[in-house]
Amino acid sequence: MPTLRIALAQVNPTVGDIDGNAAIVRRHTRAAADAGAHLVAFPEMMLTGYPVEDLVFRDSFVAASRAGLRQLAADLAADGLGGLPALVGYLDADGPATLSAAASPDHGPRNALAVLYEGRVVGHYYKHHLPNYGVFDEDRYFVAGDTLTVARIAGVDVALTICEDLWQTGGPFAVARQTGVGLVVSVNGSPYELNKDDVRLPLVRRRAAEAGAAVAYVNMVGGQDELVFDGDSMIVAADGTLLARAPQFVDQLLVHDVELPAADPARPVADGPAASDGARVDDLRVVRLQVSDERPAPAGPPAAGGVVEPVTDEAEVWHALVLGLRDYVDKNRFPSVVLGLSGGIDSAVVATIAVDALGPERVVGVSLPSQHSSEHSREDAAELAKRTGLDFRIEPIQPMVDGFLANLSLSGVTVENLQARVRGVILMALSNQEGHLVLTTGNKSELAVGYSTLYGDSVGGFNPLKDVWKSLVWKLARWRVADAERRGQTPPIPENSITKPPSAELSPGQLDSDTLPDYTVLDPILTGYVDGDLSRAGLIEAGHDEAVVDRVLRMVDTAEYKRRQSAPGPKISIKAFGRDRRLPITNRWREHG
Amino acid sequence: MPTLRIALAQVNPTVGDIDGNAAIVRRHTRAAADAGAHLVAFPEMMLTGYPVEDLVFRDSFVAASRAGLRQLAADLAADGLGGLPALVGYLDADGPATLSAAASPDHGPRNALAVLYEGRVVGHYYKHHLPNYGVFDEDRYFVAGDTLTVARIAGVDVALTICEDLWQTGGPFAVARQTGVGLVVSVNGSPYELNKDDVRLPLVRRRAAEAGAAVAYVNMVGGQDELVFDGDSMIVAADGTLLARAPQFVDQLLVHDVELPAADPARPVADGPAASDGARVDDLRVVRLQVSDERPAPAGPPAAGGVVEPVTDEAEVWHALVLGLRDYVDKNRFPSVVLGLSGGIDSAVVATIAVDALGPERVVGVSLPSQHSSEHSREDAAELAKRTGLDFRIEPIQPMVDGFLANLSLSGVTVENLQARVRGVILMALSNQEGHLVLTTGNKSELAVGYSTLYGDSVGGFNPLKDVWKSLVWKLARWRVADAERRGQTPPIPENSITKPPSAELSPGQLDSDTLPDYTVLDPILTGYVDGDLSRAGLIEAGHDEAVVDRVLRMVDTAEYKRRQSAPGPKISIKAFGRDRRLPITNRWREHG
Repeated sequence: MPTLRIALAQVNPTVGDIDGNAAIVRRHTRAAADAGAHLVAFPEMMLTGYPVEDLVFRDSFVAASRAGLRQLAADLAADGLGGLPALVGYLDADGPATLSAAASPDHGPRNALAVLYEGRVVGHYYKHHLPNYGVFDEDRYFVAGDTLTVARIAGVDVALTICEDLWQTGGPFAVARQTGVGLVVSVNGSPYELNKDDVRLPLVRRRAAEAGAAVAYVNMVGGQDELVFDGDSMIVAADGTLLARAPQFVDQLLVHDVELPAADPARPVADGPAASDGARVDDLRVVRLQVSDERPAPAGPPAAGGVVEPVTDEAEVWHALVLGLRDYVDKNRFPSVVLGLSGGIDSAVVATIAVDALGPERVVGVSLPSQHSSEHSREDAAELAKRTGLDFRIEPIQPMVDGFLANLSLSGVTVENLQARVRGVILMALSNQEGHLVLTTGNKSELAVGYSTLYGDSVGGFNPLKDVWKSLVWKLARWRVADAERRGQTPPIPENSITKPPSAELSPGQLDSDTLPDYTVLDPILTGYVDGDLSRAGLIEAGHDEAVVDRVLRMVDTAEYKRRQSAPGPKISIKAFGRDRRLPITNRWREHG
Repeated sequence: MPTLRIALAQVNPTVGDIDGNAAIVRRHTRAAADAGAHLVAFPEMMLTGYPVEDLVFRDSFVAASRAGLRQLAADLAADGLGGLPALVGYLDADGPATLSAAASPDHGPRNALAVLYEGRVVGHYYKHHLPNYGVFDEDRYFVAGDTLTVARIAGVDVALTICEDLWQTGGPFAVARQTGVGLVVSVNGSPYELNKDDVRLPLVRRRAAEAGAAVAYVNMVGGQDELVFDGDSMIVAADGTLLARAPQFVDQLLVHDVELPAADPARPVADGPAASDGARVDDLRVVRLQVSDERPAPAGPPAAGGVVEPVTDEAEVWHALVLGLRDYVDKNRFPSVVLGLSGGIDSAVVATIAVDALGPERVVGVSLPSQHSSEHSREDAAELAKRTGLDFRIEPIQPMVDGFLANLSLSGVTVENLQARVRGVILMALSNQEGHLVLTTGNKSELAVGYSTLYGDSVGGFNPLKDVWKSLVWKLARWRVADAERRGQTPPIPENSITKPPSAELSPGQLDSDTLPDYTVLDPILTGYVDGDLSRAGLIEAGHDEAVVDRVLRMVDTAEYKRRQSAPGPKISIKAFGRDRRLPITNRWREHG
């Protein structure tokens, strides 16, 4: 069988930045050509970024995507790269955008993949399976395609598919088998989720078996609001062998030689760039497309992309959080970030993530001590600042707190919340004055039970720990310390921040355990209730104490209003608060006693 | 033709309150029976409230809905009401809830309507057309039904439909014609939108013609987070005559006698309560169901529901805002609300809405003057408080502002924002201390261009003006004043608050017009860009100044992060910020120069 040199561009587009994304395509197509590739594939909706959400309803945006695609094809040819077929995801529409895709099942916006060749858009494929669960709302945005495009590229028949087409049984992969393709290309915008990489490889293998063909899977990397795309691009042979796999969370051009059956020359394809109408197979119409027969012998030694081994859960999550934060800051053009440093574990981990993402010179940490702040808290904050090299400031809050107390009659929890809000006002003032993005440091356990002050410690534009249970915060801290030690570096996080009992330090001697169950008890209940949608009965059956379950459920059920106004943060679990889990605020459903 | 006395219960359920909603059904079924009705119909998902969103993924919630329905049927019989067929919306599932309805097209959660009779659930219908646009996400939640249920009730064949079934051509109404029904019942959870009532009547008429039958349309009333259901229930004869129509925004049992053709006794129906399988018509299977043949002569004089005339746009919006606020406060069990009173138009209108919704004894207004507050502002705030009778307080902010300024080096806009945030801290302290819900008073124009201080004037749990353009705020104020004068009452809003130029009063002599175009220029651009998704070119073509368009679009495009953390508020337009309009924060798409 002849060899096809496949290049998968695991790259990081930005939503709405059509020019910038086109520039990424040109740069990586150049690199793929230099590597002697016969084909280069880019992720889902490469040209527009993903997901574009309600931008699909702007006709001007759709028009810009279509025009940008044509321009990109011409620019690639002008770059001398027209002879290398490039698969580029974009936003298309075969009719005006409508409010309701369901109301116009035959036309509307399309999640599309184009074949660019010799300066032109020679063909396209429209995504067939549209995901509409979890973080996905594609029934809102797109009309499903009913055609399978088979492109003859370098003499091999290649079926085009997009993301969800891989996750559903039947459809494009099943039809691909009946059309006798040698390769299925799957372009993706598949968000990170803990252990999802363990699911992807078996899935790609299953589809390779279903299609009876090799599968080239390319996924984007990068942060987009609450989503982090982790890459994990790979090539799997028809027999299920993993041939090459790219690392997660980094840009990579994965180039690999694959032995693939030559297309049957007797099989009809269109004459020239126009697509030919083919027969209907199952529920799809097959369109065959002639792109290129030439396959110059690859230059130099065989290309081997290598197979990257999976990393530990903690490493994976850490890299997801770092990438999610870096892209939120950079894509939104913030020069720097600011956060409050309490000496506690949450702010220490966020500060370390920020330093890893942006470098210490772009991170401002502010110690905001009150009369209830312990000496060790102030010292731990200063020690973290010293170890990481971030820009450290100290702003005692007591004078401002006293100003409010002198003018208002406040007591109890109100005074605790007041301290958190004064800190919020100071951080926002520094943000306004100096241009930093404020980072929030509340973890998922706190957000779940509402253990935070609205407009106080919840202040901020981005929260790296939004989807990280408190138990995992500690694990991440320990992993980061061990990783530093392994590299012979000083660990950024002081041991004391990890080992001391958690406290908000808003009243004398206060501990989290005054208000909440111990996190070893709390987190398993929260994981079951939030991530698992377990019922009260199910939680008790799983061995949790009935009274504690009731107490926890009561807190979760009544904190929805706080979550609604919370800062975005990277999704790492199956049910991140936000797009993944959509509950009414006004909701009297209570299972707890 | 015989007479059917139809009762439509335009009522106000609460999401998740299955027991409370069942009690509403029992109360109104009693009233319908007392009125001699042959049939009583309740809104879409009456038993669970609507929309329940991700609660459908809790098996325990689905089980509670199903059990609650059976219990309700038994309770109605125990109440002596078993002989009156009751149509009650609920949440059903014919299999376990799944993450993806698309993945399990044959079973999963259902948006369902039950027929309760003689103590039992004798039949049901599953919504066929699922809306997945605008505020609706029903492809995420429900599996579409493929059956049309025709229930023989009091000797008349009645087709059952749910909400979106009415808005789509084809499907249940077309099939209903072919089955020869005398009446189609349409149960709804149809949210308010300005002028939607002008669309509904023609639509119901069109469907009556399509079905060749009378249509009984019942919609819920009430606020649910950002949605306000406006009722507007009606009965239209087969020939399109409007027979009865209920007012918007109020509970009502609409009882009306309608002449309807008797069911053909030769047509087969199931023997007893079990449903019989019928033939497939178009894409629906028809199930015929025998409920009751008895039709006791209606007692007393003929029932006539009357036809309510439409009100003005301003009256309609005002009532929507009042209802939306009242239900958010009451359904979430807040005792009272608090808001800052600046003397300006926005806070004056919000205070008046709050007083109309809750009564003056449940509204706290706080004047929060700074050194930049004008004398007339303080006086206008006090005058409004006097006229409405709300609980009025004065908390000067300068001492607290000075506390921050003495300890931090702040200047320019940062100092303006600081003042707004000190006000926010004070309002939240009052909320914590006394239990009030804080109301936000920023209008839609401000929210669109980001003309507000995050965690400052944007503080609050609910914002009545979230979806009200500034121009409309003024119109509402004038309408409310004129309405009071018409009733011989003192207008609640001082004339000066309406006529003075808008100002944030955060720096000396500051006016909105220093930063923003005049609202007569701004609002039409915003309406085109936000509500109409017009492009820059389209806006300029419509006659707007190019430089102003660019300036406005720049502001709108960069304020998405503020909108993401904004308080919920009642939707009144076609594109309310929030569920209606979903845009990424990280988004480099810019049409403006």
